Amino acid sequence: MKIYKKAILPCGFKASGISCGIKKSGKLDLALLYSLLPAKAAGLFTANRIPAVPVILCKKFLAKKGLFRAIIINSGNANCFTGKKGLEDSLSTAGILAKALGVRNKSVLVSSTGIIGRRLPVAKIKSGVPKLIKKLSDKGIKEAAQAIMTTDTFSKKVTAKFNMAGKVITICGIAKGAGMIFPDMATLLVFILTDVDLPQGLLSKALKGAVAGSFNCITVDGCMSTNDSVILLANGASKNSKGVNIKDFGLFSKALNIICLELAKMVVRDAEGASKFVEIKVSAAEDFAQARRAALAIANSNLFKTTIYGENSNFGRIIAAVGASGVSVDEESLKIKVSPLKKKDILVNVSLGKGKANAVVYTSDLTPEYIKINAEYN
Amino acid sequence: MKIYKKAILPCGFKASGISCGIKKSGKLDLALLYSLLPAKAAGLFTANRIPAVPVILCKKFLAKKGLFRAIIINSGNANCFTGKKGLEDSLSTAGILAKALGVRNKSVLVSSTGIIGRRLPVAKIKSGVPKLIKKLSDKGIKEAAQAIMTTDTFSKKVTAKFNMAGKVITICGIAKGAGMIFPDMATLLVFILTDVDLPQGLLSKALKGAVAGSFNCITVDGCMSTNDSVILLANGASKNSKGVNIKDFGLFSKALNIICLELAKMVVRDAEGASKFVEIKVSAAEDFAQARRAALAIANSNLFKTTIYGENSNFGRIIAAVGASGVSVDEESLKIKVSPLKKKDILVNVSLGKGKANAVVYTSDLTPEYIKINAEYN
Repeated sequence: MKIYKKAILPCGFKASGISCGIKKSGKLDLALLYSLLPAKAAGLFTANRIPAVPVILCKKFLAKKGLFRAIIINSGNANCFTGKKGLEDSLSTAGILAKALGVRNKSVLVSSTGIIGRRLPVAKIKSGVPKLIKKLSDKGIKEAAQAIMTTDTFSKKVTAKFNMAGKVITICGIAKGAGMIFPDMATLLVFILTDVDLPQGLLSKALKGAVAGSFNCITVDGCMSTNDSVILLANGASKNSKGVNIKDFGLFSKALNIICLELAKMVVRDAEGASKFVEIKVSAAEDFAQARRAALAIANSNLFKTTIYGENSNFGRIIAAVGASGVSVDEESLKIKVSPLKKKDILVNVSLGKGKANAVVYTSDLTPEYIKINAEYN
Repeated sequence: MKIYKKAILPCGFKASGISCGIKKSGKLDLALLYSLLPAKAAGLFTANRIPAVPVILCKKFLAKKGLFRAIIINSGNANCFTGKKGLEDSLSTAGILAKALGVRNKSVLVSSTGIIGRRLPVAKIKSGVPKLIKKLSDKGIKEAAQAIMTTDTFSKKVTAKFNMAGKVITICGIAKGAGMIFPDMATLLVFILTDVDLPQGLLSKALKGAVAGSFNCITVDGCMSTNDSVILLANGASKNSKGVNIKDFGLFSKALNIICLELAKMVVRDAEGASKFVEIKVSAAEDFAQARRAALAIANSNLFKTTIYGENSNFGRIIAAVGASGVSVDEESLKIKVSPLKKKDILVNVSLGKGKANAVVYTSDLTPEYIKINAEYN
C-alpha cells in the first residue's frame, strides 16, 4: 500500500474549485467533486441538534441508498439556522448544478461551511456553476481542496493506492478543519473518493470504523460544529472483482483508516492558532469509554492547553481534568508522563491504574492566536 | 436587610492573614478564621474524583456534625495528588494550629488552594502559626480574604446584616476564584461566618440552596477544581431565640443566597483575564436541567467567549453551542437576543421555544490574558 500526502483522483472522478464571490477576500469558495459513473455513497454527520441545512439534506438523500454523481461544496457560509429559506437555497443549488451537468437532482449532494445564520448567496453560486463545470479535470482536486477551506492555513489531502481483487484501488480524501472541532460523529468537512466496487453496506461499515478511530478522536476546542460531514463516494471504476472476500474488505478498511487518520491529524496540526500537536494516550482504564472520556477531558481543558502552549510543566491540570471527567481512577497508581515540552509534537501518557482499556485523542494547544482568529471571524 | 461590599465579622469571630513564605512573591498566603465559641458547620465540596487532601478531611470532619473553632487556609499549594504524605501534612497543620490555640484537633478545619501535585510546606506554615494567632482581630478578616487569593486581582467579601428572632444577625462571606471555575458542587474556596443560632440541619439546607443558585451557576473555563470548598460556620453568638420559625429561616436563607450570589458574581468579574461579565438566561426550556445545560454549553464555548471578547456579533456560535448541548430545541421558535457588545456587562437571552423552564449562568469572556496567565502559572 502506498500513501501519498497529495490528492490523486481515483479513476472516473473529476474535480474543480473556483471563487464565486462568497468570500470577501476573493479566495476560492466553491468546489465540485464529480463522478463520471453513478457512485454509491456513505456518510456520517454531526450530532448537533441544530444541524445545517446541507447536513439534513445529505442525511435524507443518503438514507435512500441511491447513486450519486456530484457533490457541490461552498465555504464562507454554513447555511445553518436559516429555516425554510435555507432549505430552498440548498435545494436550488443542487438543482442548478444538476441541470448544468445534465444529471438528476437527487444525484447531487450539497455541503457548506462557514458563518452560521446567514442566507446562502445562491445567485453567486449560480453564476459560478458554468465556470466550475468548465474547470472540471483530473488535477482539479487541488483547487477543490482549497475551495473548502475557511480558517485553514493549508489544504488537507491524502491518497492511498493498493492492489485488491486484481485491480489497483485508489482512495483520495480531502478535509477542512481549523476550529469548532469536537466531533461526535465526524469532523467538519471530509470528502473521500474511491474507485472501488463494494456493496453500500460494506462502504458504510468501513467508514464508520475509520471515523471512530480518527475524526472521533480529535478535538481542538470542544465545540461541536453544526456542519460536520464525512462523505464517501465509491464509483466502482476500478472494476475490481465483485466477489470481494474478507481479506479484500480488510485491506480496503485499512486503507480507509489511514486516509481518515492522516486527515484527522492534519486538521489538528492546522488547528486555529495551534503551536503544538498533542497526542494523549490514556491507558489502564476500566473500559474504552472511560479511557476516551478521560483523554477528551484532558484535551478539552483550557488549563491543560495553555500549560502546553506555555511549555510549563504544571501537570496538576492533567490531574484536575482526569478527576473532573468522573472516570474511575486509582490515585495511588495514577501515572502521568509527558514528553519534552520544547518540541512541537507532545505525547502525554496517562495510566489510570484501574483496568486494561486504552484510548488515544489528538489535540492542539490554546494560544492567543486562537483568540485573535475567533474574536475577528465573521 | 443591609448588604455591605466589605467584610464585617459577626459576633464571636476573629480572623487574620499573613505571609509565611509559601508564595515566592511574598504575598499573603496563610489565613485563620477563628470562633470564640464552638460553631456548627455545613459544607459543600468539589465533585472532582481526585479531590485535594483538605477536601477529603473537611468532608470527613463535617460528616460527624461536630463543633468547630477554626479554619486554617493556605494559598500557593493545593495539597492535591500528594498521597499519604499529603494527608499527614494536612493533619499535622491542623494539629499545630490546635495546639497553639489550645483547642481539640478535631475542631480545626484545613483548606488549601494553589498548585497541584507538590508537597505542602508544613515547616513554613508551622513557623507562621504564632504570628497568625497573634494577629487575630475583628479587622483581620481583610487580610484573611487577601491571604486566600491565588490569581485573583481583588479580594472578594460581602456582609449581610438583618433582624431575626429578636436579634441582629450578621453573615460574612469571603471567596477566592479566578480560574479553574466550573463547579459541580461549589467553587474554589468560600468561607461564610455567621453568628446565627440554627440547627445544623437547617444550616446545611440553607447552604445547599444558596450554592445551587450561585456557585453552581458560574463558569469561567469549564475546568472543575480539585479543591472547591464552601464552608459555613455558625457560632450562635447572636443569641437569637432558639425557636426559629419558617419565616426566620426564610430570612436567613435569603440573606445567605445574597451572600453566595454576590461572591459568585465577584468571582466571575475577576475571572482570569476577563474583560466582560456575561449573564446568560435560557428560557422556554423543557425543564430546568435542560435550561441549565444549554446555558452552560454557551458559557463554556470557547468560540462564544472569543466572540464576546472580540465584540463580534457572530451569534452562530450560540446556535452551535445550543445544538451541541443536546437539549430539545425548536429551531423555528429559537430566539437569541444579545445586549450591546461594547459594554462591559453583557446579557444573552436565549429562548428555546419548547417549554417553561429557565436558568441563569454567569461567565466571562476568553482573552489572550487568560492564556498568558495560565501559560505562565506554576
